Amino acid sequence: MKSNTKKIPFDKQLKLECGKKLQGFELMVETYGELNSNKDNAVLVCHAFSGNHHAVGEEKEAQKPGWWDQLIGLEKTIDTQKYFVVSLNNIGGCHGSTGPTTILSKTKKPFGSSFPEVSVVDWVNTQYLLMNYLKIECWEMVAGGSLGGMQALQWAISYPNKIKKAAVIAASPRISSQNIALNEVAREIIRKDENFHDGNYMQNNTKPKKGLKAARMLGHITYLSESNMSKRFGRRLQDPITKVDEKINYEVENYLQYKGEQFSETFDANSYILMTKAMDGFDPAKKFNGDLVKCFKKIKARLLIASFNSDWLFPKEYSMEIQIAAIKAEIKSSYIELEGDYGHDSFLYYSDEYSTALKSFLENNE
Amino acid sequence: MKSNTKKIPFDKQLKLECGKKLQGFELMVETYGELNSNKDNAVLVCHAFSGNHHAVGEEKEAQKPGWWDQLIGLEKTIDTQKYFVVSLNNIGGCHGSTGPTTILSKTKKPFGSSFPEVSVVDWVNTQYLLMNYLKIECWEMVAGGSLGGMQALQWAISYPNKIKKAAVIAASPRISSQNIALNEVAREIIRKDENFHDGNYMQNNTKPKKGLKAARMLGHITYLSESNMSKRFGRRLQDPITKVDEKINYEVENYLQYKGEQFSETFDANSYILMTKAMDGFDPAKKFNGDLVKCFKKIKARLLIASFNSDWLFPKEYSMEIQIAAIKAEIKSSYIELEGDYGHDSFLYYSDEYSTALKSFLENNE
Repeated sequence: MKSNTKKIPFDKQLKLECGKKLQGFELMVETYGELNSNKDNAVLVCHAFSGNHHAVGEEKEAQKPGWWDQLIGLEKTIDTQKYFVVSLNNIGGCHGSTGPTTILSKTKKPFGSSFPEVSVVDWVNTQYLLMNYLKIECWEMVAGGSLGGMQALQWAISYPNKIKKAAVIAASPRISSQNIALNEVAREIIRKDENFHDGNYMQNNTKPKKGLKAARMLGHITYLSESNMSKRFGRRLQDPITKVDEKINYEVENYLQYKGEQFSETFDANSYILMTKAMDGFDPAKKFNGDLVKCFKKIKARLLIASFNSDWLFPKEYSMEIQIAAIKAEIKSSYIELEGDYGHDSFLYYSDEYSTALKSFLENNE
Repeated sequence: MKSNTKKIPFDKQLKLECGKKLQGFELMVETYGELNSNKDNAVLVCHAFSGNHHAVGEEKEAQKPGWWDQLIGLEKTIDTQKYFVVSLNNIGGCHGSTGPTTILSKTKKPFGSSFPEVSVVDWVNTQYLLMNYLKIECWEMVAGGSLGGMQALQWAISYPNKIKKAAVIAASPRISSQNIALNEVAREIIRKDENFHDGNYMQNNTKPKKGLKAARMLGHITYLSESNMSKRFGRRLQDPITKVDEKINYEVENYLQYKGEQFSETFDANSYILMTKAMDGFDPAKKFNGDLVKCFKKIKARLLIASFNSDWLFPKEYSMEIQIAAIKAEIKSSYIELEGDYGHDSFLYYSDEYSTALKSFLENNE
């Protein structure tokens, strides 16, 4: 499989939804497979909240597979022999694209807290610029789960002539009060870390690792299902020899501590805040007085809408709201509720049913 | 209604379940109504995680009603004309009973982090000593919700001859992996506040208020239901004039910020950790190799087991597990699933259905 990782500069000023501007930006992009001569085999995959451009294959440093490695590759669900798959780190992120850790050439200091608010609409706009750069005329499919699914849906709304299919997986047309509340607790934890310095920790040569860790521990609980946690950990006590901290008793505590710690090493706190704010703010129907049907009227792409039965963060009702609006707006769509053991995170894991649904959606043209 | 608030000293050494000892302790106790001459009208109500002895009536300082004021009082569900209601702050708490903020007479310093681990069994044992002090021979009923419901259940197990009825409301025979995980995140947030000082913040003349605040914000989400939050807050933006913090956008964020801040003023961080650890550790079946039926065999009290339909923290499956074990153990019990708008917190709020169930359980003897 041909694979390519590249940081691509965009020099033109970018106007963001919040009204602020970026004087140019860079996107860290990874592609898999090759664009055919008809340029009609391109698939864009959009990462979720803490994902990045590395969707497929081994990561050189951490040796972690890409976030959708189970579904993309040679003879996999999205077969890279047939499709040219494009993946990128979104702006505001912390894996190579322009974000809060980027050093400003003028001041030689990082953006830090001055990085402007970004939105799903902004990401789709930058992905559109990337599309032009790659000389792709129309995406065969844009796909993603969770916040990635929101981008797929926004693509269908923002650029109806540039996308044939949108796979909107474990997503929502707008998140709930409870989701916002959970995001706000995570942000509060990060902001109140004494090393946060109002977002300018890099300038202070420090990092709010404690806050990031606890925020991720909370996030992790919401990505898994109760039944999955019960199966994996139950109420088993942690072996004292392998305890990561004296203060914990149970295996599940040890696991969360470990996962949180690991995350805090690699992720950026300002990005965490920006990404969750983008998730909170996603609400394409807002411009249509909350009418999702009106908002969907100009969509030309076919939609695949999928939810997972164990997902309590973005339960099936969210996906069904998209499907019902799609039916009323008379756009082509199908909805499937999939079995998934991993709660909200199920969208990251292969299953025959999931793979078949996505593959047949991608490969069958009407 | 006759009401009495008193701090009662117990001089004897108390051996705790963890193996450690307290050289005497004090209980902050509030009673409502009067003990009759037969001494058969006493009701013990046990507080949940962050509750205290003040169950009924106006609080003098904060002007807050007691936590079960909606259900206890003159002509209320638990009628104080008929019943002598006893409420106390549990040891390890921070509302007057011996706990981490208690100053040790020897050292003139607070217990702080040296306060020993307490358990539901320990609380029931101290409540038993209180019962003797008050010259009550048998409780007509022990009742509580959440962690309070666990105490009611433990009473039926620990002192089968001293309790006629146990009202086990919104409780669980043991909490799940997910519950433990949520508690651990809250503890992690508190422990990592730079003012926590390994639990000895009083000695350092400070308080981990930021940690307590964020931990409570998280707790608050789990006590409410998603539908209740959606109804109350939806996705409405907070009026900029009444924002508690510049960084928030939504009403739900403002509400949580406010609630968390308020809580952090009055609660103690070590108590937070102790109380959640007691909740994690509650597992009466453990001594019976996990067999709840065996554990229930010696119960003589009648049980009322109640859950609320909107409670996602302690869903009905937990209550049903108690009911099924009770049936198999051939003890008298009834289970009811109640409507409740407030998620897990529903046990605190009056409804006709809830009141009728509890009143008829208390007043009807077979």
